[in-house]
Amino acid sequence: MYEPPVQRLVDELARLPGVGRKSAQRLAFHLLHVDEADAERLGNAIIDLRKQVRLCDRCFNITADIECSICLDLRRDPTSVCVVERAQDIAVLERTQEFTGRYHVLGGAISPIAGIGPDQLRMKELVARIDSESITEVIVATNPTVEGDTTALYIARLLKPLGVKVSRLASGLPVGGDLDYADEITLGRALSGRKEL
Amino acid sequence: MYEPPVQRLVDELARLPGVGRKSAQRLAFHLLHVDEADAERLGNAIIDLRKQVRLCDRCFNITADIECSICLDLRRDPTSVCVVERAQDIAVLERTQEFTGRYHVLGGAISPIAGIGPDQLRMKELVARIDSESITEVIVATNPTVEGDTTALYIARLLKPLGVKVSRLASGLPVGGDLDYADEITLGRALSGRKEL
Repeated sequence: MYEPPVQRLVDELARLPGVGRKSAQRLAFHLLHVDEADAERLGNAIIDLRKQVRLCDRCFNITADIECSICLDLRRDPTSVCVVERAQDIAVLERTQEFTGRYHVLGGAISPIAGIGPDQLRMKELVARIDSESITEVIVATNPTVEGDTTALYIARLLKPLGVKVSRLASGLPVGGDLDYADEITLGRALSGRKEL
Repeated sequence: MYEPPVQRLVDELARLPGVGRKSAQRLAFHLLHVDEADAERLGNAIIDLRKQVRLCDRCFNITADIECSICLDLRRDPTSVCVVERAQDIAVLERTQEFTGRYHVLGGAISPIAGIGPDQLRMKELVARIDSESITEVIVATNPTVEGDTTALYIARLLKPLGVKVSRLASGLPVGGDLDYADEITLGRALSGRKEL
């Protein structure tokens, strides 16, 4: 047992994902030894995060305003929408600089095992946007997992009757990867998704 | 790049030891999704830590008061002192429930490579305590490293002329360990430190 203020911080840190009791102790004692200003900045950044951040009214991305910077960007194509499971996926896709439309954050993927059905996700909001924003193309960028695939299929069935072009990110070998290290499912997808040269 | 409040937290988290950019992002987005009260508790625990905690006037342990709970505990033997490198080592030793004296936190170990000599450690404070607290026994519990061993030898030479009994934690095989996995230096120490049965 440590002194109460130390113990309290260890307990709070140990609740974070991937942080065990040992790492929590190490982090707490690290914070005891850094400049007080540094520790305070971290503490305030955590508190401010929740005070200053909300979900975009349109796409449910993380934002400090009513709408996120992507939805507000007039240079982006409003008729093309990329559907992602979580807000943090947007930053990964943005880094590719390949997509110039807007996003839609579902808040997860369909998972019967975890008890998550379409109603727990932002499907109604997606359908509503198709009409109100005249969206003509939806790119489903859910994860290449069983849940992500199920969700992509569900969205395709939901939106195709509305005349929307629905596509899914390609599965296949990672660039720079090695055939030797590819699992058979990835390799199978790479085969079935082969492109003529 | 994320929205500024998120990015700021990612940057602050990534400065922690053992937390890379990827973990920092994961932690930040985790904190975006937990209860706001939970996030606030963590933020406040970090800020309060530095506001509520100081070093014990006597032994330099972490404390919320002028002296730490161990120094203030009247049941503990004031004539026996265990010297440790860092305050967090005290909790580890306390868990053994084998030591009933007080502690002294050096603040590190002698390391010519890192430019840490006896003057950068709390040696003077240790010597002053010998006299003022009538300490008769000092157990050196520095780490079993070159630096810890050097520090232990230095303390022994410093305190023996004062008539203090100085000892060092035994080095040897960890309990529950396997000879196969012991390195030769540990095994050598275990041999030279063998006890008659």
